[in-house]
Parts: sequence; structure tokens; C-alpha cells
Amino acid sequence: MQFHHHGYVSGDPRVQPATGYGLKRPAELPDEVDVLIVGSGPAGMIAAAQLAQFPGIRTHVVERRAGRLEMGQADGIQARSVETFQAFGFAERITAEAYRITEMAFWKPDPERPENIVRGAVPPDDTTGISEFPHLIVNQARVLDYFAEVAARGPARVTPDYGLEVVGLTVAGAAEAPEAADGAQADEHPVTVTLRHTTGPREGTERTVRARYVVGSDGAHSAVREAIGRKPVGDKANHAWGVMDVLAVTDFPDVRTKCAIQSHDGGSILLIPREGGYLARWYVDLGEVPPGESARVRATSLDEVIARANRIIHPYTLDVKDVPWHSVYEVGHRVTDGFDDVPAELADVRTPRVFLTGDACHTHSAKAGQGMNVSMQDGWNIAWKLAHVLTGRAPEALLATYSAERQVVAQNLIDFDREWSRLMATPPEDLPDPTYLEDFYVKTQEFPCGFMTQYQPSMIVAEPVHQELATGFSVGKRFKSAPVERVAEGNPAHLGHHARADGRWRVYAFADAAAPAEPSALRDWAEWLASAPGSPLLRHTPAGTDPDSVLDVKVVYQQDHFGVEFADVPDVFRPRVGPFGLIDYEKVYATDPDHDIFELRGIDRGGAVVVVRPDQYVAAVLPLSARDELSAFFAGALLPQPRPQETTQQDTTQQDETNTEENA
Amino acid sequence: MQFHHHGYVSGDPRVQPATGYGLKRPAELPDEVDVLIVGSGPAGMIAAAQLAQFPGIRTHVVERRAGRLEMGQADGIQARSVETFQAFGFAERITAEAYRITEMAFWKPDPERPENIVRGAVPPDDTTGISEFPHLIVNQARVLDYFAEVAARGPARVTPDYGLEVVGLTVAGAAEAPEAADGAQADEHPVTVTLRHTTGPREGTERTVRARYVVGSDGAHSAVREAIGRKPVGDKANHAWGVMDVLAVTDFPDVRTKCAIQSHDGGSILLIPREGGYLARWYVDLGEVPPGESARVRATSLDEVIARANRIIHPYTLDVKDVPWHSVYEVGHRVTDGFDDVPAELADVRTPRVFLTGDACHTHSAKAGQGMNVSMQDGWNIAWKLAHVLTGRAPEALLATYSAERQVVAQNLIDFDREWSRLMATPPEDLPDPTYLEDFYVKTQEFPCGFMTQYQPSMIVAEPVHQELATGFSVGKRFKSAPVERVAEGNPAHLGHHARADGRWRVYAFADAAAPAEPSALRDWAEWLASAPGSPLLRHTPAGTDPDSVLDVKVVYQQDHFGVEFADVPDVFRPRVGPFGLIDYEKVYATDPDHDIFELRGIDRGGAVVVVRPDQYVAAVLPLSARDELSAFFAGALLPQPRPQETTQQDTTQQDETNTEENA
Repeated sequence: MQFHHHGYVSGDPRVQPATGYGLKRPAELPDEVDVLIVGSGPAGMIAAAQLAQFPGIRTHVVERRAGRLEMGQADGIQARSVETFQAFGFAERITAEAYRITEMAFWKPDPERPENIVRGAVPPDDTTGISEFPHLIVNQARVLDYFAEVAARGPARVTPDYGLEVVGLTVAGAAEAPEAADGAQADEHPVTVTLRHTTGPREGTERTVRARYVVGSDGAHSAVREAIGRKPVGDKANHAWGVMDVLAVTDFPDVRTKCAIQSHDGGSILLIPREGGYLARWYVDLGEVPPGESARVRATSLDEVIARANRIIHPYTLDVKDVPWHSVYEVGHRVTDGFDDVPAELADVRTPRVFLTGDACHTHSAKAGQGMNVSMQDGWNIAWKLAHVLTGRAPEALLATYSAERQVVAQNLIDFDREWSRLMATPPEDLPDPTYLEDFYVKTQEFPCGFMTQYQPSMIVAEPVHQELATGFSVGKRFKSAPVERVAEGNPAHLGHHARADGRWRVYAFADAAAPAEPSALRDWAEWLASAPGSPLLRHTPAGTDPDSVLDVKVVYQQDHFGVEFADVPDVFRPRVGPFGLIDYEKVYATDPDHDIFELRGIDRGGAVVVVRPDQYVAAVLPLSARDELSAFFAGALLPQPRPQETTQQDTTQQDETNTEENA
Repeated sequence: MQFHHHGYVSGDPRVQPATGYGLKRPAELPDEVDVLIVGSGPAGMIAAAQLAQFPGIRTHVVERRAGRLEMGQADGIQARSVETFQAFGFAERITAEAYRITEMAFWKPDPERPENIVRGAVPPDDTTGISEFPHLIVNQARVLDYFAEVAARGPARVTPDYGLEVVGLTVAGAAEAPEAADGAQADEHPVTVTLRHTTGPREGTERTVRARYVVGSDGAHSAVREAIGRKPVGDKANHAWGVMDVLAVTDFPDVRTKCAIQSHDGGSILLIPREGGYLARWYVDLGEVPPGESARVRATSLDEVIARANRIIHPYTLDVKDVPWHSVYEVGHRVTDGFDDVPAELADVRTPRVFLTGDACHTHSAKAGQGMNVSMQDGWNIAWKLAHVLTGRAPEALLATYSAERQVVAQNLIDFDREWSRLMATPPEDLPDPTYLEDFYVKTQEFPCGFMTQYQPSMIVAEPVHQELATGFSVGKRFKSAPVERVAEGNPAHLGHHARADGRWRVYAFADAAAPAEPSALRDWAEWLASAPGSPLLRHTPAGTDPDSVLDVKVVYQQDHFGVEFADVPDVFRPRVGPFGLIDYEKVYATDPDHDIFELRGIDRGGAVVVVRPDQYVAAVLPLSARDELSAFFAGALLPQPRPQETTQQDTTQQDETNTEENA
């Protein structure tokens, strides 16, 4: 955590000073906003937390509920999500209050006495060491609390407006190409949203808000989705579940372990222990619901669900003492036919204004514990892109990558979940072999952990032509952190954990083997980045901001920290920041001899450059010599920024020496 | 973290429901309180945080300042203190915002060119792996914030009353033996404290408060100390320091590493990098101050301190950009001649009512980073003892152990600090050999880490006659946690981290080698503890409370978690708690095969019982067979509690079978 560099911070450093819109934010939702987020669930709140870091952007959130969510339904938190929480600054706190999954028990009918269940395999939850973060269970309400805290403490001070629901939405000129930006003024707030008050003295009254962009995070019955004419596509039949959060006394020995339980008559339970040491969630399978049978299935009583659970876990019993929440719900497998408001035929002529995230674009079973996690990555993906466009860092074309990237992820999720749900609902004797279910679970672990997402090449993901230089940083997949040493104080550190959800790109220069003081490919690259006319650092950093405000450039040496003198490190890795021009000491890393990052991540000893997006996905792997490729990558992703000594022609890339020194 | 067992908790589980005095706590300081804590520094606030867990106790804190401390002077946090923060629930949060010390650099004159300093040894900060917690630097103000949060969130909802200073204090009957408790009513609030408002409309006006007990945590110039006639004893001459927190640009390469810097002319600096990555604290030695010279030394200007620092670090330079805080201060080495209000000659006839903690009873240099740490242990020590006495768990005699235990610690601290200060102030050429300073530092590391404290046998520390059964748990020293597995879900856990600062004693039963389902010494012991008439669990647990409300009894098996079936574990280790009588699943542990606690802590394979005090110090190590010894230990430390079926004679120790079963 870095602070004090703008002057002494007496209180909690997690509370950032309000600036820009955060200083003048109106108490009431105004008539015009930059971004309107509809819904304060996981997708909406991570987007709010991300956009709150940008005090130049007027971000507002509307939520139908009258206040904070008291009890959410989702509870599964993949390691990928905890990694995300780390970037937002609350991983350690939520982990401390969560239940941690380290293994899963598979129970099935006793072959000798099939009316009884017996324990089968108990495989570990993450056999592959795919993340340094744990797999957690914690109520969605607490996840939202933490994101709300980040949003409220960000410089833009974003807090949700409760008690407002969307009843209509139109996008001006949606059916045609927009007027040319250099001609007649295009409508700057083309999205008109009609809202209705759901509570309070104005209950039932309507008002409109005009927005530059709208993020529809309003759930499975999304009004935003309806308004832009997008449709969920998928199964006709739904699957029904009786689900209950219970405080109970039981002799079932694995009640504090995540369990898949299959009984001899086909009944099955997914048992998820919950945070706090006592509560557990029981998902009791009620089977497929044929069309028209919905009402009957939904009438299943709590007592019936409890009785069914007792039958399934025979010879054990479940004596329920308290049920804080229960429900019977149905869910199908559906993906919306597009995640923004631009129909395929107009994709070449206009960029999107409205985006769908979370349950608004994908619904599926709870069995794989995926929903909240995928929704959060939706929200983060669109939020940093909106911030880039609204702050002038990137062209509007960036926004089209949202649907392109996330729709594929959603389809993969639905395919995985359909298969997993089908297997769990199959009577054991109908499976190919007795360990088929647990084998599938172990084999496919990377998916539910959240690490299978791999974005395809685009304006923000380079072709992986140099992948062999860093085989452990797959282009398009999330940057997998590894241990290093920080040179300035010799502290052990995790390289990726320094990257916060601040909308910046990370450029990691892995050094060649030369001693830091000697001539090297790294020194040449650093010199070029600091001063060459084509340097992306100079081209894309706005004048008057810190030199690392857009690209956060770090170095990792092959030596350990005693082998690197700070004075020998090129200046570009120790920029001067803040009003006092202080040296940032946290960008220079060395190799931890006990956990050699070059070995662990397959990094070429000749060095490599790894570019990582603001949402932690690897955008490019390049050799230190590929300067034109690095410049070209950023020229495709970002806009050039005017420099003080430049002419008024915005697209010049000439930099003079004075600029260079300022940014070195 | 365990919660939900009294019903679903929607919000932050760290916020406990208000109960008892927490529900009716007056907004203004009342005329009568149980405990009055004077001063809201580290000693006072840890005491407040501890006492806030007891809603039957009326605890109040008065503080001279008008509000929260904005910037404290102390900043060194030993591993022992982080361990303590863990028990209070905020270790992970404060660690995330702190600077972490992993090594220390020793700089000294270049033998070739003595006007220049050069780097000498850079020993690691904890070579011995003495703790799983880090050594941190973080401002005292933040430590106080966290304790204040714990105090405010405890069931008694303790918050400081600001703007009140002590001007007088008297203890009724202090000079004589109290009236017999069974005769005329003794004064229940014998301490009368006169307070003066320091701010606000009542500034300058006085009022009195009557208290059962007073904790004087009011600093080096303690008015409480003065009132009870205690005197600081020690050096006549003081040592002066110029100290400054600076934001600076420097080419001194180790500015982010803790450094001891000695220059050729004897000038020395202790450099402490601070949290946030930019700030550093420079202690610049100004030498001994002979009596009468104080005013002259105190007039040393900031510019002079900066100039002196620049001379010492030559050939490097320090370009100071901002100085959030600086001071010239003097400190001697003094220990107060007793830490409570009972003179030696009355020790046999009365128990103390007033206690001194922190700087009120020990002052010394800042060089070893000890002050705040020792003060916090003072505060914790007296607070749990007061809670024990005020809730009727323990006899008043317990309170005499406070001064007995902490005065020794303070004297050791002063002795260590005097030696360390002397060495740092000695010109390098006058030391016995060139590495004498760093060798002393490495050799004595356990002391500044906070782990040398070893309490002597008393009513709460048993004679270490069975120490060989658990050589790694030294009787009288703090319980050194070790990794284990929790049986119920197979989670990796750290055994000691489950123990929170809730005033409970921990009784760890380390099992003998038998399989859990087989007859064993452990099973026999568990059966005895659950049901025998002499069982301390039955004798000291008040009726109507959870069976683990006073003694938190846990088991650690020698098998790994797959080798322990929860159903085979004796009931005493899986008590039924809360209004629903739910099973507590977090008291049953297994051995982590990769970190065998029996090996790591030298525990006899025949089993052992380790008793740990509420402040984490080991009170006893016993064989599983030593039941009478265990009973006798607790009979000496705690009072018997009335049981429902008992007669009204309070001091009966007979328990009947009905009682026994209820508590099993």
C-alpha cells in the first residue's frame, strides 16, 4: 500500500481523498451522468468500485431495493475472485471471515447397503496450485459491502441510489451510424433511462436520466436487457432446487466439508458449509421442471425439503434448529444473444452505449459456484474500458471488446455447468464408472477456479507470437503472480499483488542476466522507453500526471536483492511522483532464490517484456528488443496524449528532449 | 472467526451485538464506574478493547486530548504485538498498511576514507523464525484506531471520553487493611478521581468519578503515578534525540531499509522507513544531556538536525521536501518503584486498586522500538485480570500479580535498552571488534522481538515440573503457535490463532498416539474433565453459560485429519453452544504431516496438557494423568462457580452427576 507521498495521511490509508466529482457529487441522482450502473449486485458494484477511482467520471448506481442487501443467495468465491479482491484491497479481510474450501467429499450409496450413504473420494480442491489465493464461501451481501466500501472511499465517492428501478431505456440514433464526431455535435448523453421510485414518498413516480453509457447489472429479469431487445437463449426446461441455509445438529460427519451427496434413489445434495463455523447451505435437487409444472414444484415446502434431505443422507439425520433463509428456485442454462446494444449488422458503424453484465446475460445452476464470480469479471471488464474511453486514454472502439470477450466466457460457463449439473443428477449406477464424478471434478478444476478464461487476440490482446519467452504468462489469461524480492528493503513480495485496481496497465520488464550496472538489453530497453520518440510511455502519458499514471513499469532482475544496487537501476523504474517529486521505491524487484520467478514462469534468461491489462489479463509477451511491436501494441489500444511542448496537432508522435527528461 | 450461532449475522461479524452495559451505556461519563482507564494510548486502549468484551463491567476511558490522536510518536511493532493484534482481530489489516522489517543494515565509516560511510552487515531481522508474524512499522495513531474499533464493537461498546485530565486521586483506606468482606460493607468504589475538563464549554471545571479500579495509562508525566506516590527510578542524565518524519529525495541507497548509521565523528542515526513507501523516520543522536543543559539541547532547530543528518550520511545527501512531524526530545532510563498502589508493607493485607501501565512506569530510548509493545502487554495483563475479578471468575489476589509480573519485564527492558543505546552511541573504534554492534543485535534478537518475557511461578503460572512433556511451550513464556489441521473440514490452521482476546483460558490436550476410537489416556482425561466431581471445567464454569465460556478446551491428535473421524472425538471437545445448542466444530485438530506440531514443539508422544492464559502465556504443562494437579492449578487461579443444583454455600466443591452431564 503506497501513501503519504502527497503529504501525511493520519487516518485509514484505504480512504482516498475525494477529488473532482467526488467533491461536488450531488446528494440526489442528477439528470445527466456519465455512467449509469443499473443494479448493485456483484457485477454492478465491482464496476462502481472501479469507476470510483476516476474522479473525472460522473458514475451513479441505481438499485431497486430500498437499501443494502441483507442476505444474498450467491456464496461461492473462486480463487480468481479473491485475487480480484486483492486488487481492490480487501482480500485479507474477507478471507478472515469466510469459510475456506480445501477439499470436497463425494458421498454415494454404500454398495453393500445402498439405502445408506458412504464417503467416497475426498480430493483436494486445488491440486494444481493454480493460485496463491484460497477458494472461499462467503455471503454475497458481504462481498457487496466490501465493494461498496471501496466505491465510497474512492476519489469519486460513489454510493448507490436505492429505491429506483428501470422501466424504460432508449439510445438515440441506435439504429444508424452516429454523426461524424468532427461534424455536427453528436449527442453526448445518448442513453435516456426512465426510472421509477420503488419506495419512499415518491414511490411510483417516474423520472428520466440521460447517460453517456449504461451498464445493465439488473439480474436475470433485466429491464435493461429487455429495453435493448436482447434475448436469453438456451434450455427450455429449468432445473429446480430446494435450497436452505440452516443451523442444525447432525451426525453427518462431513457437515463442515463441501460435499456432493448422491443417494440410491437418485436424490442428490450439494452441501456447502458457510462462514462462521455453524451455518451450512443445503442444495437439495428437486429435478427438471417440465414446462407448465413450475407452480407445483415451487410449492415444495421447507418441511418437504428437510425431509428429502434426511432421506438422502440416511443413515445420518439432520435436526434443523433455525433456517435464516430458504427458497425453491428454478434455473435454466441461458446466454443472452449479445452483451451490448449494437446489433451485428451495425458493429462496423457504431460503438455500444449499453452493456449487459452478470445474470442479465447468463443464468445457470448454482452447482459449480460460478455465478457471482463470472459476474464480477464482467463488471470489471466493462468498467476499466469505460474509464479508459471517458478519460480519453483509449478510443471508443475499445468498448466493442466487452461483448466479444465476455460472451465467449459466458458460453463456456454454461457448457461446463450443464455438464456438471447433468453428472450430479445422474444416478451413480448410470455413470461410466464409480469414480466418474470425482474424476470429472478433479480433471476440470481450472474452470471452476476461474482461471480458464483466455481472451483472443484483439486491440488489447496481442498475438502470442513470442509466448515461448514467458511460457507461464499465457497471453490472454490472467497474470499468474509469483514470489519475488523487493530491492529497496529486501521484503519478500508477490509480484502481481502490487497491481491495484486503479485502471493502469502494468509493463513488467524481466531483465537479461547481466549485472545491473553492466550494459544490457534491459538498460537499452529502459533508455528507449524513457526517451525515444516512439516510446509508448511518452506517447500515452498525459502531461501533468505522474510518469506512471497510465503505464506502471516495473523491473524484475535475475539476481537476488543483494545483487541489485538501487543506484544501478535505470531511472524509468524509479520514477519521481507526487507534488514533492519523491522516488517510488516499489517498482524494482529481484529474484527470490527459493522461488525463482524465471523458473516458475518459464521466462527466457535473455529477458522479456510482459504487458498486463488493468483487469490482470496478460496482453502481450515480447522480447526486450521488440520496441516497435510494443509501441504498435499500445498505439492500437490507447490514444496518444498531448504533450506540453507539442504543437496543437494531437496525433504527432514527436517528443522533444525536455519531455523525455520529465518522464524518465 | 465464529458467528451465526446466535442467529444469522448479516453485516460485519467483527461488530458484536451490544449487551449488558453496552445497551445502556450513558453518553456522559457517569459518577460511578467499575474501571476508569486514564489515557487512550497503547496501554489504555488495549485495556479498553479487552474490557469491552465484558458487558457486565462498566469500563470508561478518559483522555486529556480533545479527540483522536492525529500523529503518534511510537511506530515500532514487534512480532509479539502483531500476534497480539491477531488475538484482537486486526493483524491482517494493520499488516497490509504497515512497513515490514525483514533485515537491518549497519553502516559505518569507510576504513579507507572515514569521512564516508559504507554498508557493513545486513543481518536478517528474525534469524530464528521465532514467530510466524512479521516485525512492522506503523504509526501509533493507527494502532490506537484499531484498538478503538475493537473497543467500540465489543458488547460493552467502550469509547473514550475526550477532554478530561486527572488532577487528583485518592484510595479510601489505602493506608490500612480493608474491613473484612464478611463484616461491615467495604467501600465498593474506593477510588475517587478528580478530573478537569481540558476543552469545550466546561474547560477548567472539575468533577469527580468514583471507581472500583483505576488503570493509569497517562504517560511519562502520569498524574495517577504522582497521586499514588510512586516514583520513577533511574538515570539522572537524559539522552537527547532529534527526530523527524520526512518526505525526502536522497541517494542514500538503504533509505527503505532499517539502518543503524555510525559516522567517523561519533554521530549516529537510527533510520526507520515508515509505512506507505515514502516516509522515513530519522533519529539523529544529540548525545547525553547533563543536568541543566536541557533547554540548550531542546532548542536544536530542525535545520540543524537535517544538517547533522547530512553530515553523518556523507557522501550521500538528504534533500528534505516535507516534514510532517519533528521534535527534539530527551529520555532517560527509568522504572517506577512499583506498578500499583500497594506499598510492600501492606502487600499481605490489601489488594491493589490503582495500576500503572506503559510510560507511566517505564521510560527509555526509542532505539530498540520497544515502548509501545511493552506498554500494550502491560495493558492486556491488567485488563484480563480486572475482568476476571470483576466477573467473579477469580479472587482479588490475582491483581497483585500485575505489578509482580510487569515490573520485572520493565526492568529487563530498561537494562536491554541502556546497553543497546550505549553501544549505538559508542564510536566504532571504541567497540571491542568491528562487528560488535551487529553481533549484539543478532544475538539478542529474541528480546526486541518481544519473546523473552517469562513469568515466574505464581497463582497463574505453575511450577514447570513437567516441562519436558512439551519443551517448545516454555511455562511462563507466550504460547508459540504451530500449524495443524482442523479435522472438521481439513483446513490448514495455526493452533494459536483460534484463541481470541476474549478473556478465556485455553486448555490444549495433546493426544497420545492411540487411534481416536480406541481406549487411550486422552479418552480417560476427556471423560474425567467432562464429568468428574473434581473437574475444573465443572467447577469454574458458571451455570447458564456455554460449557467453554471460561475454559476453552481443544484437542490435537497425532494423526492427520483423515485419521480422525469426528464421531470418535470425545464430546468435551465438541461442546454444544449458543441458544440452539449447536456443535462447535473448531476445537478438534489433527497433525499436519508436513509441519508436525509434536515434533516442532517437542511434545511427548504420550500426550500432554498445555494450559494457556487469556493473554497467551503458557500457565502449565502437565501429563494427561495429572488430574489433581490440573484441578489444583485452577483452584488456585479461579473461584468456584455456583451450579444450579448446588446448595447456596458458595465454596462447596462438590458437583453432582446432573451438573456433570449438562456440561459434558
